[in-house]
Amino acid sequence: MKGYAFLEKGKIGFVEKPIPTCGKKDAIVKLTAIAACSSDVHSVQMGIAPPNLIMGHEGIGIVTEVGEDVRRIKPGDKVIIPAVTPDWSEKEIQYNMHQHSGGQLKGINLSSYEDGLYAEYARIRYADMNLALLPEGMDLKSAVMVTDMMTTGFHGAELADIEFGDTVVVIGIGPVGLMAIAGSKLRGAGKIFGVGTRPKAVELAKEYGATKIISYKEGDIVEQVMEITDGNGVDRVIIAGGGIDVVNQAVMMVRPGGTVANINMYESMEDIPISCPAWGFGMAHKTIKGGLTPGGRVRMEAMIQLVMAGRVDPSKLVTHEFKGIDKIADAYNLMVEKPKDLIKPIVWLE
Amino acid sequence: MKGYAFLEKGKIGFVEKPIPTCGKKDAIVKLTAIAACSSDVHSVQMGIAPPNLIMGHEGIGIVTEVGEDVRRIKPGDKVIIPAVTPDWSEKEIQYNMHQHSGGQLKGINLSSYEDGLYAEYARIRYADMNLALLPEGMDLKSAVMVTDMMTTGFHGAELADIEFGDTVVVIGIGPVGLMAIAGSKLRGAGKIFGVGTRPKAVELAKEYGATKIISYKEGDIVEQVMEITDGNGVDRVIIAGGGIDVVNQAVMMVRPGGTVANINMYESMEDIPISCPAWGFGMAHKTIKGGLTPGGRVRMEAMIQLVMAGRVDPSKLVTHEFKGIDKIADAYNLMVEKPKDLIKPIVWLE
Amino acid sequence: MKGYAFLEKGKIGFVEKPIPTCGKKDAIVKLTAIAACSSDVHSVQMGIAPPNLIMGHEGIGIVTEVGEDVRRIKPGDKVIIPAVTPDWSEKEIQYNMHQHSGGQLKGINLSSYEDGLYAEYARIRYADMNLALLPEGMDLKSAVMVTDMMTTGFHGAELADIEFGDTVVVIGIGPVGLMAIAGSKLRGAGKIFGVGTRPKAVELAKEYGATKIISYKEGDIVEQVMEITDGNGVDRVIIAGGGIDVVNQAVMMVRPGGTVANINMYESMEDIPISCPAWGFGMAHKTIKGGLTPGGRVRMEAMIQLVMAGRVDPSKLVTHEFKGIDKIADAYNLMVEKPKDLIKPIVWLE
Amino acid sequence: MKGYAFLEKGKIGFVEKPIPTCGKKDAIVKLTAIAACSSDVHSVQMGIAPPNLIMGHEGIGIVTEVGEDVRRIKPGDKVIIPAVTPDWSEKEIQYNMHQHSGGQLKGINLSSYEDGLYAEYARIRYADMNLALLPEGMDLKSAVMVTDMMTTGFHGAELADIEFGDTVVVIGIGPVGLMAIAGSKLRGAGKIFGVGTRPKAVELAKEYGATKIISYKEGDIVEQVMEITDGNGVDRVIIAGGGIDVVNQAVMMVRPGGTVANINMYESMEDIPISCPAWGFGMAHKTIKGGLTPGGRVRMEAMIQLVMAGRVDPSKLVTHEFKGIDKIADAYNLMVEKPKDLIKPIVWLE
Repeated sequence: MKGYAFLEKGKIGFVEKPIPTCGKKDAIVKLTAIAACSSDVHSVQMGIAPPNLIMGHEGIGIVTEVGEDVRRIKPGDKVIIPAVTPDWSEKEIQYNMHQHSGGQLKGINLSSYEDGLYAEYARIRYADMNLALLPEGMDLKSAVMVTDMMTTGFHGAELADIEFGDTVVVIGIGPVGLMAIAGSKLRGAGKIFGVGTRPKAVELAKEYGATKIISYKEGDIVEQVMEITDGNGVDRVIIAGGGIDVVNQAVMMVRPGGTVANINMYESMEDIPISCPAWGFGMAHKTIKGGLTPGGRVRMEAMIQLVMAGRVDPSKLVTHEFKGIDKIADAYNLMVEKPKDLIKPIVWLE
Repeated sequence: MKGYAFLEKGKIGFVEKPIPTCGKKDAIVKLTAIAACSSDVHSVQMGIAPPNLIMGHEGIGIVTEVGEDVRRIKPGDKVIIPAVTPDWSEKEIQYNMHQHSGGQLKGINLSSYEDGLYAEYARIRYADMNLALLPEGMDLKSAVMVTDMMTTGFHGAELADIEFGDTVVVIGIGPVGLMAIAGSKLRGAGKIFGVGTRPKAVELAKEYGATKIISYKEGDIVEQVMEITDGNGVDRVIIAGGGIDVVNQAVMMVRPGGTVANINMYESMEDIPISCPAWGFGMAHKTIKGGLTPGGRVRMEAMIQLVMAGRVDPSKLVTHEFKGIDKIADAYNLMVEKPKDLIKPIVWLE
Repeated sequence: MKGYAFLEKGKIGFVEKPIPTCGKKDAIVKLTAIAACSSDVHSVQMGIAPPNLIMGHEGIGIVTEVGEDVRRIKPGDKVIIPAVTPDWSEKEIQYNMHQHSGGQLKGINLSSYEDGLYAEYARIRYADMNLALLPEGMDLKSAVMVTDMMTTGFHGAELADIEFGDTVVVIGIGPVGLMAIAGSKLRGAGKIFGVGTRPKAVELAKEYGATKIISYKEGDIVEQVMEITDGNGVDRVIIAGGGIDVVNQAVMMVRPGGTVANINMYESMEDIPISCPAWGFGMAHKTIKGGLTPGGRVRMEAMIQLVMAGRVDPSKLVTHEFKGIDKIADAYNLMVEKPKDLIKPIVWLE
Repeated sequence: MKGYAFLEKGKIGFVEKPIPTCGKKDAIVKLTAIAACSSDVHSVQMGIAPPNLIMGHEGIGIVTEVGEDVRRIKPGDKVIIPAVTPDWSEKEIQYNMHQHSGGQLKGINLSSYEDGLYAEYARIRYADMNLALLPEGMDLKSAVMVTDMMTTGFHGAELADIEFGDTVVVIGIGPVGLMAIAGSKLRGAGKIFGVGTRPKAVELAKEYGATKIISYKEGDIVEQVMEITDGNGVDRVIIAGGGIDVVNQAVMMVRPGGTVANINMYESMEDIPISCPAWGFGMAHKTIKGGLTPGGRVRMEAMIQLVMAGRVDPSKLVTHEFKGIDKIADAYNLMVEKPKDLIKPIVWLE
């Protein structure tokens, strides 16, 4: 089969590989749609994936084969594949940290340790625990978007400890930040300030619930937030984009007792600086959190419920569509080039 | 001044009283709008209020006088008065239970222990801590509705521990239940089942976020819920109406590990029955909670933020309007008679 | 092999069965020590177990065989078997309710749905996830006590939301109640009132951390608690014994905003009554919780850490010891007769 | 009256001031015992206090006068004064952040904004809400120690989200770190590793519950912790001492999903560095918290309950005693010089 794989630092391309074999607890899924993700771009540019590893971890498909221990999923099932597909037999499961099952970040297996979804077929481990059934009538673009963008953005809102009426800043309004805005609204935020500039993103930020847009181009964002809030700062900050300095900006603009929730992956080996006075010299109860989205079946079902109930429409994130496996390269390149009107590209594989 | 007061068990009527005098931390508020509340009806019918006590605890007005210790509120301020106006100098404040400051339920002072808001003027204790400023441009019906209906319904959603995508049942779709539906949506619920029958309430329940309506008239509600959920039960139940038997229904329809959140005041001296098998013989992790809404300034500001950001429009609850203090009797009588098209009546006092 | 099994309602006796066969994820454990538990007595007297089911769910042993999928546990390992041995491949795992994996209370498999530990050998499902290694040097009586008594009592303390300095009542000072006292101390309780009368239990209650003993024989326990606390009530109540009426007593003696945590299994098909006024007519924020102890490997390891660090010594619970599988009948009978000096009997099987 | 006051950067000395006048909500307390605190040393050395401000915020005394609004406290009462004495009429009270009532860190008023306790008399604002009664029979050294050392150390344990059996590292075993050890034990920690070297501190660390001592002198502490834990890291880290680099060490040694709780005041205007890879590139769910201890009456009562129930004996922290107000200089100098056998000095004032 064909796959689009990491070749060497900075290089990605098509490879030919056998269709994966199915282990006892696995399912083989024929992919029907995938989305390109900027985290693949980072992996490729940093050269951190194993050579020849097929990239991609956002997709849906049809099950073609299941292992002998699989009880719930069966061939022919249309399924949604979460970006995070943990090993459900490790001790971290028992303290509710499946994202790190088997070790830090080990829950995100596809495109990190095993062949991912930029391919005709993929093997999904722990099929019963990881695959969610695609409900009849669900919009397929939304189905692809829940696997990573929506669940990640919504995890930002969860981490942020939002209470009814809170003022929330979402830094970065790419696809994850847009979903963090939608998620904040659905956790009860009052005012939501989106930080970003691209017109398409700004438009969607407002549709998803932002009450105000703050632009880097109009001055320091911390100063802007402090001015708008009469010097009080905001209750919660979700970081969904930016370099390592953004953490400090978040700490500066959050009030004592507030929360900074990070869902942004920093590709850096350096130190993240936290201003000692802004952090109240250690005494301000400004909590700093950050983590990988939950995955697995039940998480996907929760996201699906929200979409099916009409609480959020993640399909609006899809600004570009392609057809055919060869077009994965085009979709990927869009994520590299990030044209102004891009939020998220999807590739239909059948 | 004129006030509409509890006279004796089952009897309410207009009384003449002096305008209240202002204590050091108090404000005197000239009322501009009030709403009638069914909890007043209950107090009157059960005869539990002190004789001659002016009823009413949902209202807005203009400050005419403040005590010498009041720093923040000043005469001329347009204010929103929370139903719950605690004494902020009791020990319960220090463990975050202001609703019970000074003793169980003592936070709800107006119309329980001191003259309430069915009057031309009212005295509000701890004015700085209890009164919220009415923002310019805020819809006045919404302003009256946040004081009790919205904050109480939203407290139900808070107590229910809702997580993204949860299925929630709201039992009772009077004004509080409708706000519990809106609040559940804004805490991240997926499916929301409203239990009720009146056409106006059903219509609003759907507008506020119910994905399905369950009617008592079509059979046992527990059976209906279990059937819809394939025997799994739901994640959370919010009780916003009904007699003491409704708690048991809630326990029966919630899944192991789920939560029953009660915001319904039971006027009963009897025992609430909880089925031992339905509660898993004590072992099912079905948590039962219940409590009075938070009040005070910061809570009102949180509700105001939600309204001003367009997250919810509680003004839709107002189905009947009157003008003039004499019409409080009409509004009150509506709450007694509960005509089919009634959700909530408001009386404009100027 | 020999086992001590439920025969028919009210009857228990020895049976001969083949040594269980080992499934792919299972381990076969040769038991070296077991404890008799009053919940077995209840099962037998109520006749709710399947006929011929071997009873018992507290024990330690040596692994003799493991299934082909078992990676961590190996023959020869000395292991601690938790009372709760869930199926780790159900959806409830993903929302952190392993006690109810596969359905309400389904996590407690041994002696409920499958042959238990009153036997020479037992099959433990999901061996990697459920079995904890017995550390070198660990007292063996403590090892048996952690499997159910300690973890259950400590779960009561967890459910009770104890904060530093809280006053806690523990109703019932049998082995579980004694561990609830020890657990409350180790969650930060200040005053702990143990409710009970038997001299041995009273002595141990004080050793484990009770600051006062309240006796049913000296009057109504609610009145006694209210008098001691100047009418304020206590912060938390843990129920570790009693009939269905004890829940109401707990609700009556807890303060507004407090928690009632139930770890007592009620063998009743009736309704548990909750006094409406004591529960604040639904408004008092008195939270009522109850649930089966967590199980599995990580939970056992947590309990083991506490014992090995000297935080608690559960071996003191063991008041009676027997040797040889035939003596399981004697140990069981002690749990039926409950002599005054009994807390917990253990049977050494080698 | 005499007081020991900040004079200019680096300089402290005795001053003569009038006995403070009593405001409406205040109490005047004649001090009977105080303790010297290293945070005073920092304030003096950094020159951040207003000139002539009397230092000190750990003490007990006798009430000599109360304001007209004070209802609960009366002259003659023996009282414990919390280090944190908030203004209970600010909005932060309503979201449960009294430490920051009126602004970041504004809850710690004594010796920061108003004259402190190194004096014959002190004015305590919000006397009813801030002063706790000294119980009869309470050890007086313990009474002084609860005001800051114990409540601060215990707050570290609270912030750390400790669950039963967790392994906890406490970095720094001065008086606050020792109380963090005791607090961790009383929140349910299993293994506790104390990081420090001074023999007296090491001895007390073990008495208070440390199961192991790690010394900076024997190599990098992160490496030591990772080696002891087989590379897994620990569940929780409490920082109770060190410079800004210690935060990073804590992040490095905590496991994914773990918590770093800071109760150490950093006197630095620089950036605290957090290693991006150690923090899982933002994805590891390593939560970083930090905050000032709660104060006020109810908090003090909670600490008192723990002492009176025998859960902890903070009096062991007192290694040096003096008598007479003139000796405050000696006590203070000890905190500057930190001799090897010093944990905490106390000065008896009558």
